[in-house]
Amino acid sequence: MKAEIIAVGTELLLGQIVNTNAQFISQKLAAYGIDVYFQTVVGDNAQRIRQAIETGRSRADLLIFTGGLGPTQDDLTKDVLAAYLNRGLVIHEPSMAKIEDLFSSRGVHMVESNRRQALIIEGSEPLANEAGLAVGNGILADGTHYLLLPGPPKEMKPMMEGSAALWLQSVLGNEQPLHSRLLKFAGVGESNLEAKLIGLIEGQNDPTIAPYASEGEVSIRVSTKASTSEEANRKIDATVELIKELVGEHLYAQEDIPLEEQVIRLLRASGRKLASAESISGGLLAELMTSIPGSSGEFAGGVVTYTNEMKHALLGIPMSQLEGPGAPGAISESTAALMAERAMAIANADFGVSLTGVAGPSEAEGKPVGLVYAALAQRGKPTEVYTMNLRGSRQIIRLRAVKSILHRLWLAVR
Amino acid sequence: MKAEIIAVGTELLLGQIVNTNAQFISQKLAAYGIDVYFQTVVGDNAQRIRQAIETGRSRADLLIFTGGLGPTQDDLTKDVLAAYLNRGLVIHEPSMAKIEDLFSSRGVHMVESNRRQALIIEGSEPLANEAGLAVGNGILADGTHYLLLPGPPKEMKPMMEGSAALWLQSVLGNEQPLHSRLLKFAGVGESNLEAKLIGLIEGQNDPTIAPYASEGEVSIRVSTKASTSEEANRKIDATVELIKELVGEHLYAQEDIPLEEQVIRLLRASGRKLASAESISGGLLAELMTSIPGSSGEFAGGVVTYTNEMKHALLGIPMSQLEGPGAPGAISESTAALMAERAMAIANADFGVSLTGVAGPSEAEGKPVGLVYAALAQRGKPTEVYTMNLRGSRQIIRLRAVKSILHRLWLAVR
Repeated sequence: MKAEIIAVGTELLLGQIVNTNAQFISQKLAAYGIDVYFQTVVGDNAQRIRQAIETGRSRADLLIFTGGLGPTQDDLTKDVLAAYLNRGLVIHEPSMAKIEDLFSSRGVHMVESNRRQALIIEGSEPLANEAGLAVGNGILADGTHYLLLPGPPKEMKPMMEGSAALWLQSVLGNEQPLHSRLLKFAGVGESNLEAKLIGLIEGQNDPTIAPYASEGEVSIRVSTKASTSEEANRKIDATVELIKELVGEHLYAQEDIPLEEQVIRLLRASGRKLASAESISGGLLAELMTSIPGSSGEFAGGVVTYTNEMKHALLGIPMSQLEGPGAPGAISESTAALMAERAMAIANADFGVSLTGVAGPSEAEGKPVGLVYAALAQRGKPTEVYTMNLRGSRQIIRLRAVKSILHRLWLAVR
Repeated sequence: MKAEIIAVGTELLLGQIVNTNAQFISQKLAAYGIDVYFQTVVGDNAQRIRQAIETGRSRADLLIFTGGLGPTQDDLTKDVLAAYLNRGLVIHEPSMAKIEDLFSSRGVHMVESNRRQALIIEGSEPLANEAGLAVGNGILADGTHYLLLPGPPKEMKPMMEGSAALWLQSVLGNEQPLHSRLLKFAGVGESNLEAKLIGLIEGQNDPTIAPYASEGEVSIRVSTKASTSEEANRKIDATVELIKELVGEHLYAQEDIPLEEQVIRLLRASGRKLASAESISGGLLAELMTSIPGSSGEFAGGVVTYTNEMKHALLGIPMSQLEGPGAPGAISESTAALMAERAMAIANADFGVSLTGVAGPSEAEGKPVGLVYAALAQRGKPTEVYTMNLRGSRQIIRLRAVKSILHRLWLAVR
């Protein structure tokens, strides 16, 4: 089956927003084994939406629209497609009831146009919208499948994973449904991970093993067709065991969560606490840890000591360690160790992590851009210190340094 | 003139990357007054690239390609377009010399395919690539204009703003070139800013005043056509003066820089230093400040005190202030003030900022999600404390809180 994704919205053509919907839908279709040959963006204009439908039909079996299902006069997708198919629009009563309930529960007068969100194309399957009011549609007409999704990502994504996923399964016919699991890796680069797994990736067809890009992290998707989830899980588990034998020390989760969230979970499960002392990363590690809801139980806090004076004032590191003839300097193994140990002690925590180094653009203390010292202190154990030589922009060096020390922490806490 | 943007790359169709190029190019075209009616994404496949050219020609006068100019067998854009136009490919000698120089200066053997990057379509204008090896092309054939840009954003963007911009000006004919200036605002929401400027926006046509979305910040682009930059600057300056009269306390820059960068510049110019104490924002403020290269002279550092114990241990705030019967609590005006003042004192800085509040998902100390106390301490002046009631997700509340206190700091330091 060949699909085309058609995003509808003038704001995309003006460059006001980026088309993340096309990416999300493409990723889902890739997982279903559906080929995407074209993505199109068209504005809120009836004539050009119709043109996009005609062009799409000439080159795909499945047209997936996102956007244009809302209440305003600019929301045209259903109207244009219904006219193109010579079908009417009918009210989907459960959706209408949901809209009326919402407004009456808020005690707000409902503008009439909101009813438009409950309309579906005659003879189509309504697709529930868990996160909004505009109902989705699935239609088969003259051999072409049409899927209508809302535009706001917070509505589109749950529909694509819920009611639209079920509809797509039915469209794919009596094939066994595809099951897949995302594996998340840390402390290893994408090409390095692929090199270690290449024999496995090329040597087996079921389950398939595919690298998967998700916001700069290294992930792999393991997929198989099976009639039940139990059967799929058995097959996927067996493949995951093979992967673990090769790269188990990097596989931190079998679901789509960031490394910092897995670390927080493991700290929580074992009743332990972390504190941080950051120089090169400037608060990025603290920011990532505290981005996880409820992390205050596991992350006590930390310091951002961007100058020698602050390393002395906040952490009590002697100035003689940091500067002057023969001093190791702020960017050194021993300073990294002291930073992690002092942060742990001040917070009365179980772990302390630190990062000190040169993010660029220019060298510091005569040390090159990309040189980073990281330390992991733990209660009752010797402090681990290690050195990294990172490449990339200032921001990438900072992010890689943070993810690296979080990987070491994960190894210690898992 | 009607344009269509055609991004070429199978990685886009697989959802491995998001099509930020289409957004960037669309924004630029909007500024030039060129309408974009469609954006298309097509894979690295000769037949389908040809189809995209044919479809594009039927509905646009200007086709802008991005991607497929590189050295590999997957890079097909030039080959397919040349064949479609019945033209040959010829070597652009300056580009070839650049490629050969680069490899010889590195002492690396050049793989033959790299020469492909110096090929241009016969009768086309070569467009210099300042940031990479693949030369761009501008072509007029049978009434349609074609612009070929590289795919990597770090090459595409400078070309779109440099050699391709000049080519587009020539395509637009003897119209006067468009000049524009971006104005950046802080401490005000987009709809609020528009409401204050609506009279001005609707009341004048030259220069035009248009809201402009750029990564969640509030911006306005002022544009005018003029034969010289001096003339354009005179006209734009006059409009900026009118805008300043209405919303001058929010206009922090007349170029595309983030608020934190402007704050760093002003601190640097006046030889002053900042320190921070963050609770709700968890290090985000420190992370933004230190993301600006060379900020260690102006940002001494800060603390992330996510627990009461850390507020006591790092800042010396009495526990009786933070908890127990009758205590103001960690989330209070007086704690915010103490945090900012103590951070400033410890760092021996000129300014101290602090944020304490409830980011959610659930309330804390019986206080609602979105309640934030912010403080700005300054040497020799009384500490300013204010309250915010923010809406949005956990991340949005944190970001808005940080941008708000940075706006206050900007007002104090400008």
